[in-house]
Amino acid sequence: MRNPVLIELTRGALVESLHAGAVAVVRADGEVVASVGDIASPIFPRSAIKPLQALPFLESGAVDRFGFGAAEIALACGSHAGARLHVAGVTAMLAGAGQSATALACGAHEPMDAATVRQMIRSRTSPSPLHHNCSGKHAAMLATAAHLAEPTEGYWRPEHPVQLRIRQALEDTTGYALGPAALGIDGCSVPNWAMPLAGLARAFAGLATGEGMAPERAEACRRIRAACWAHPDLVGGQGHLVTLIMQHLPGRVLVKSGAEGVYGGAFVDRGLGFALKIDDGAKRASEAVVVQLISRLHPAAQQLGSDRRLANWRGLQVGEMRAGDALAAMLQRLR
Amino acid sequence: MRNPVLIELTRGALVESLHAGAVAVVRADGEVVASVGDIASPIFPRSAIKPLQALPFLESGAVDRFGFGAAEIALACGSHAGARLHVAGVTAMLAGAGQSATALACGAHEPMDAATVRQMIRSRTSPSPLHHNCSGKHAAMLATAAHLAEPTEGYWRPEHPVQLRIRQALEDTTGYALGPAALGIDGCSVPNWAMPLAGLARAFAGLATGEGMAPERAEACRRIRAACWAHPDLVGGQGHLVTLIMQHLPGRVLVKSGAEGVYGGAFVDRGLGFALKIDDGAKRASEAVVVQLISRLHPAAQQLGSDRRLANWRGLQVGEMRAGDALAAMLQRLR
Repeated sequence: MRNPVLIELTRGALVESLHAGAVAVVRADGEVVASVGDIASPIFPRSAIKPLQALPFLESGAVDRFGFGAAEIALACGSHAGARLHVAGVTAMLAGAGQSATALACGAHEPMDAATVRQMIRSRTSPSPLHHNCSGKHAAMLATAAHLAEPTEGYWRPEHPVQLRIRQALEDTTGYALGPAALGIDGCSVPNWAMPLAGLARAFAGLATGEGMAPERAEACRRIRAACWAHPDLVGGQGHLVTLIMQHLPGRVLVKSGAEGVYGGAFVDRGLGFALKIDDGAKRASEAVVVQLISRLHPAAQQLGSDRRLANWRGLQVGEMRAGDALAAMLQRLR
Repeated sequence: MRNPVLIELTRGALVESLHAGAVAVVRADGEVVASVGDIASPIFPRSAIKPLQALPFLESGAVDRFGFGAAEIALACGSHAGARLHVAGVTAMLAGAGQSATALACGAHEPMDAATVRQMIRSRTSPSPLHHNCSGKHAAMLATAAHLAEPTEGYWRPEHPVQLRIRQALEDTTGYALGPAALGIDGCSVPNWAMPLAGLARAFAGLATGEGMAPERAEACRRIRAACWAHPDLVGGQGHLVTLIMQHLPGRVLVKSGAEGVYGGAFVDRGLGFALKIDDGAKRASEAVVVQLISRLHPAAQQLGSDRRLANWRGLQVGEMRAGDALAAMLQRLR
């Protein structure tokens, strides 16, 4: 299905470019409170699923076994920027679990933190797997395997117990069966399971409330929420939208971005989970939609998004970025 | 109008993201040879229009007056990468026309050439307007004004004679009237006129053939073609797709990229102009479409595009980038 237009970019009197997509706002029991577009077909949540992939890290007892706390949980839930504090945090986490960075199967990419990139260019150093935005999640997977005396070798493969536990946690919390047709390999080489936006939003509603969960899982959810709000700079990085939002709305909003235009999150004090995906994968559009969505219930969040006035290289206004009619109508229905 | 899907990106067994858009292939007399999507509504051609914006630079006599040749014409037509050869070329061009870099109204942005960016970070220098990808076009505009003894001040404003001549040349070559509703301000602050894709493709067919033009304009078109093929590295930069294509197919294919997912170009030996726009503005999609389009008539061009096999940070194949049915059907109609 082709989704409705959520975001339009104008230049002069015309719409120059547009972004279609879908949004779901759902309660923990699965009731859809508001939506736009196709929320029933499977999409890949990518890194937006990390806070839920972290469940077995807590539920297995690995966090407590190695004396980890909120910082390590936040790193497990995060897509970090590869800055010094992130690399130091993951390094300490691996050491705490008796693991080495050479065991990380995420690959390497240039850090997202611009200052760190400049520093690496000046010192002529190359990024390592520790700089990969997923290295905290991978460290948590390695720690879980080590704690349970499972082989750490191949922890990233779909059939490894570490991944099977995650798949089970995702089936439980989304309410959907995740069969082989839903399997994708993520940018960091671990399985990423396609699920309907309604399911992703429902899982976040569960994470926000613990509703309908066994006490151990509800407690794990509580610790994940507390960790993300205690260390929003480890879930993203300086200036990252998820970091800004959770710095401004601790206790109220949980949010996580994913590649290809995905966001998942929750209005925690309202018991509502949300999820969105831009059809074309554009980050500028997913960021604009999540800011509009969160601003609907928390108007001060509007300032956290990029300027809706589009300026050129000399600072002249050339157009604007605005909600399309379908998004505006959906936001009207959300109160 | 929402356009058909031109490009799909898969992950595992599913389509993860998609890009819609439109393509026109047109003769110089305006006959549409093949098309997909809406080629009648106005779109902003952005930098894809530069080879046509260069017409008055030649027709006014400015090129000959200042002793300029193919290199300066290519810089006027190009979106350069801000590398040393580009900055040196534009600096010499400004000096040749008695102008200074302080007159450039394009603003400044980080060069697109990665090696130059690394060098600037190491030497702690900031980009100047000379590094702006449009500085060659701006130098040509300043030179034209100087040659015709017009004020160079405000050469970027829509009502300045430099811009009025360009608008006239675009109306002539596209076959469309460009009224105030079509006016957009480009990233470099000069007017960018919205036009149907059919008109952009027709203008490129004219540039490729000189058909139906006065001898002076046909000769200017011939010199523009020759300049782009003589200096494809000045029209783009090392590794840029337009540079690679024109390096591999000189005398046969003319091509120019624009922001927000636009390409314009011509199959010169077939007398066909083409133009395309991706609805969401994605560069990955416009590049994939232009490679598929050019490969249809010149199969060897397939290798110039990025790998259609999508790999992750560890080099594992996770999916592929492929033509949607609508694009595949349109390509079938082109022979």
